[in-house]
Amino acid sequence: MENLDKYFDLFDQSRTSEKAFEELNALFSDDMVFVLNGDKKSGIENWKLFIKMVFTENSDIKHMYEGWKKSEGADHYETQWAVCGKHSSGRVFTQTGKDIAKLNEHGKIVYLENVPDSKEMFKSYTTL
Amino acid sequence: MENLDKYFDLFDQSRTSEKAFEELNALFSDDMVFVLNGDKKSGIENWKLFIKMVFTENSDIKHMYEGWKKSEGADHYETQWAVCGKHSSGRVFTQTGKDIAKLNEHGKIVYLENVPDSKEMFKSYTTL
Repeated sequence: MENLDKYFDLFDQSRTSEKAFEELNALFSDDMVFVLNGDKKSGIENWKLFIKMVFTENSDIKHMYEGWKKSEGADHYETQWAVCGKHSSGRVFTQTGKDIAKLNEHGKIVYLENVPDSKEMFKSYTTL
Repeated sequence: MENLDKYFDLFDQSRTSEKAFEELNALFSDDMVFVLNGDKKSGIENWKLFIKMVFTENSDIKHMYEGWKKSEGADHYETQWAVCGKHSSGRVFTQTGKDIAKLNEHGKIVYLENVPDSKEMFKSYTTL
């Protein structure tokens, strides 16, 4: 679960740190799958594009999370999260939701699903 | 407006930095007034107690703000803000709202009013 515990901090640090961005991407397998608000995408290159788009559209973003827990009888982990951010337009926003993740035998993240409480988030990313 | 521009960052840094806490308090006049969700309190000592309570009740908190603007024809400044945080219980949360501030002739903050969009925030502080 070590990689999951690094995820949110590395995400936020990737805004200003190329090193953090590389460390973030190294948490995932190359054939990882990520799901944003129900829309599925595959591959680490698409993931990198997504992150770059997040930081093009937002001048700042901060995640907090409750802690990853293995769902009973399931093969995935879940955590609640809360975000505040500032759009490039200057507008500030918040969002809450949960993430669902699966790891492979090497501890790499192979699946990451973002389930926002509001369906408005990532609207612009799902047309990627 | 220099003191207002330092306010949110120093607030967040005060969680872990005594120096930031002192710098935060120095932004205000000693007889400052602050209003939390409609409840008025006076004096820098009560302000310090409020901040200490925030960081007792929350293990982390992050503010983002749109930028202070002088209200036309008025003597105060306003900005929208967004917050994400983590309660000591481990629960994460968000909040949005606006702050209203007045400065004295030395640029010190003499009045700070927090107007959350949801009336739930600071419920526990207004019984201080």
